[in-house]
Amino acid sequence: MEFTIDKELFLKSLQKIQGIVEKRTSMPILSNVLLEATGSSLHVTATDLEVGMKSTYPAEVTTPGKITVGAKKLYEIVKELPNQAIVFSTKDNDWVEIKCGKVKFNIVGLSPDEFPYFPEIKEENLFEIESALLKGMIEKTSYAICTDETKYNLNGIFAKVEVNENGENAFKMVATDGHRLSIATGALKGTAGPELLKGVILPKKGVYEMKKITDEDSGTLMFGFMDNSAVIKRGDSYMVMRLVDGEFPDYNRVIPAANDRIVTVDKENFTHSVRRMAILSSEKFKGIMLEISSGGVKISSSNPELGDAMEDIDVAYDGEPISVRFNARYLLDVLAVAETESVEMKFRDELSPSIIVPEGSDSFLAVIMPMRL
Amino acid sequence: MEFTIDKELFLKSLQKIQGIVEKRTSMPILSNVLLEATGSSLHVTATDLEVGMKSTYPAEVTTPGKITVGAKKLYEIVKELPNQAIVFSTKDNDWVEIKCGKVKFNIVGLSPDEFPYFPEIKEENLFEIESALLKGMIEKTSYAICTDETKYNLNGIFAKVEVNENGENAFKMVATDGHRLSIATGALKGTAGPELLKGVILPKKGVYEMKKITDEDSGTLMFGFMDNSAVIKRGDSYMVMRLVDGEFPDYNRVIPAANDRIVTVDKENFTHSVRRMAILSSEKFKGIMLEISSGGVKISSSNPELGDAMEDIDVAYDGEPISVRFNARYLLDVLAVAETESVEMKFRDELSPSIIVPEGSDSFLAVIMPMRL
Repeated sequence: MEFTIDKELFLKSLQKIQGIVEKRTSMPILSNVLLEATGSSLHVTATDLEVGMKSTYPAEVTTPGKITVGAKKLYEIVKELPNQAIVFSTKDNDWVEIKCGKVKFNIVGLSPDEFPYFPEIKEENLFEIESALLKGMIEKTSYAICTDETKYNLNGIFAKVEVNENGENAFKMVATDGHRLSIATGALKGTAGPELLKGVILPKKGVYEMKKITDEDSGTLMFGFMDNSAVIKRGDSYMVMRLVDGEFPDYNRVIPAANDRIVTVDKENFTHSVRRMAILSSEKFKGIMLEISSGGVKISSSNPELGDAMEDIDVAYDGEPISVRFNARYLLDVLAVAETESVEMKFRDELSPSIIVPEGSDSFLAVIMPMRL
Repeated sequence: MEFTIDKELFLKSLQKIQGIVEKRTSMPILSNVLLEATGSSLHVTATDLEVGMKSTYPAEVTTPGKITVGAKKLYEIVKELPNQAIVFSTKDNDWVEIKCGKVKFNIVGLSPDEFPYFPEIKEENLFEIESALLKGMIEKTSYAICTDETKYNLNGIFAKVEVNENGENAFKMVATDGHRLSIATGALKGTAGPELLKGVILPKKGVYEMKKITDEDSGTLMFGFMDNSAVIKRGDSYMVMRLVDGEFPDYNRVIPAANDRIVTVDKENFTHSVRRMAILSSEKFKGIMLEISSGGVKISSSNPELGDAMEDIDVAYDGEPISVRFNARYLLDVLAVAETESVEMKFRDELSPSIIVPEGSDSFLAVIMPMRL
């Protein structure tokens, strides 16, 4: 195998798969990148068996063939090479030679025969989706993904298409960790397939890699399902993620219906207030208190080792007074992804789940469990 | 005690002492900042008993007095306050109230009586020094300060004024960790006092804080000695550092005199070559090899687990061939602070100390011990 490739292009191809390759060394081949030279293309593939990515780049192929090399070391090497064409060739016993100007590296690789199978993608299984829509929906939900790995069915984002009474599609993404839940809603053009109508759980690592793809491209992506996996295609790159095999909780049952005590706050000012009050919180004591009455909102926190803090916020409210205690982090996470100038907080009582929504938008809804008073 | 102060000014004053206060909590008072309100000034003092800083700021003092408060928490609180005047007052039992707009914090402090003594500085002990001169000399030497705390006499920078045969002052700073040594030389105006003529060891932490001061100000500082301490004054701020009590090695004996094999390399290109070769180095095997002959310099490295790398560099050299092995990190540290386009490397043989100097400048000289071949 021998190919010549532009340095910056090779670097970009290797940079893209750094998040995919396995960091632990229990299976060394999963830390490697598969390089395949065919025709006038270089195919660059990485997988950790859960999330995989395969991309194709133009290259001048002298001898077709394939090899695998440590993805991290190869990236470090290419990054430091001079900005000239790189000649990459295989030698005996899975060794690799990398030449660039007056620089030469000999690196030991691993046989490509050990590399895991990467599925052939069928284009007809994919449908178009706006990159910006996916990006926004992932941002509004991913903060609430459960990090407790024993709750495997919550270690991802639930994606589902709900068809309303008018036959319109509502694309929903939902994440929860048991203490809070976030739902993003967007409009999906075209017809949803059986997977999205039933609902699927996209794994956390796959969601974060998908987010990177949407960060890079503001156009249209291809999205779809095959063999218990979700597939994202962007240009000459495919990403495949194995769906989480589990039942996601019925999120519609979690959303409280009778929260009729509603307070509207300025998002920016309220964020600063919560951040100030959170300074006195500690690992064991993260709560801040909201006391809502016709006089406004009094926000406060206290810490037996440090002291206490309080602040008055002017808001219009004519309902019954109510006091609620929240984990400050949960409030800040929601405020950070709300896109409107004001947010509505909807309460029922001290201990029932509370709702936060951006004012005048139904693209996003967050539910937060209060702390005990 | 009660004073009113501008938020940004108070924040700046607290930011400045964050590097001074003690992180460990063996003596809680050393994690605190001393605030003293007198006349129309606020004095802000911090010390860890080795390095201390005292600065004065304009404030509207209603009731003079003093208190100490946790420096890190107070900084975090002031950082998040709205951009308005802050009213700071003491209450019973060393409690403190901080008011800003509609925000109020009550924080527990510690009695100012427990705060360590901070020396009164006598201005007449200080002489003028260019901030840029100090900055450059610290940069050129501090990388070589020994980090092994048991070698306390090497845990700092040795500062000395040497008077040459023409009666001119040469201000020297020297640091070494036993594997390498770095000397910076500058011209000191005026007469050096007895401390600098004998030589003093400035402690590492004090050096880094002094560097921060020179980063902020390109003008003139006041520098001097009193009570076994070095003092730096800038505007209304003093920094005091206790000198290291020990003997610094005789650096003039370490500089080899017979290194007559001289190679001049382009600093930028050589830095890139060393960085490339360093990629294959590991924790246990950091060496890179330089083979110098009339054909040029061949630079190479090898790692039994990964592979090997090599590169040819064109240089003019007509001496005897020589091969030397270096820790790549040591070369890169020197190259990073050399200010000229080219550097001269001077060798004697494979195992003798080698010299690196900026071409055509005597402001800086580095000595590096080679590794065994």
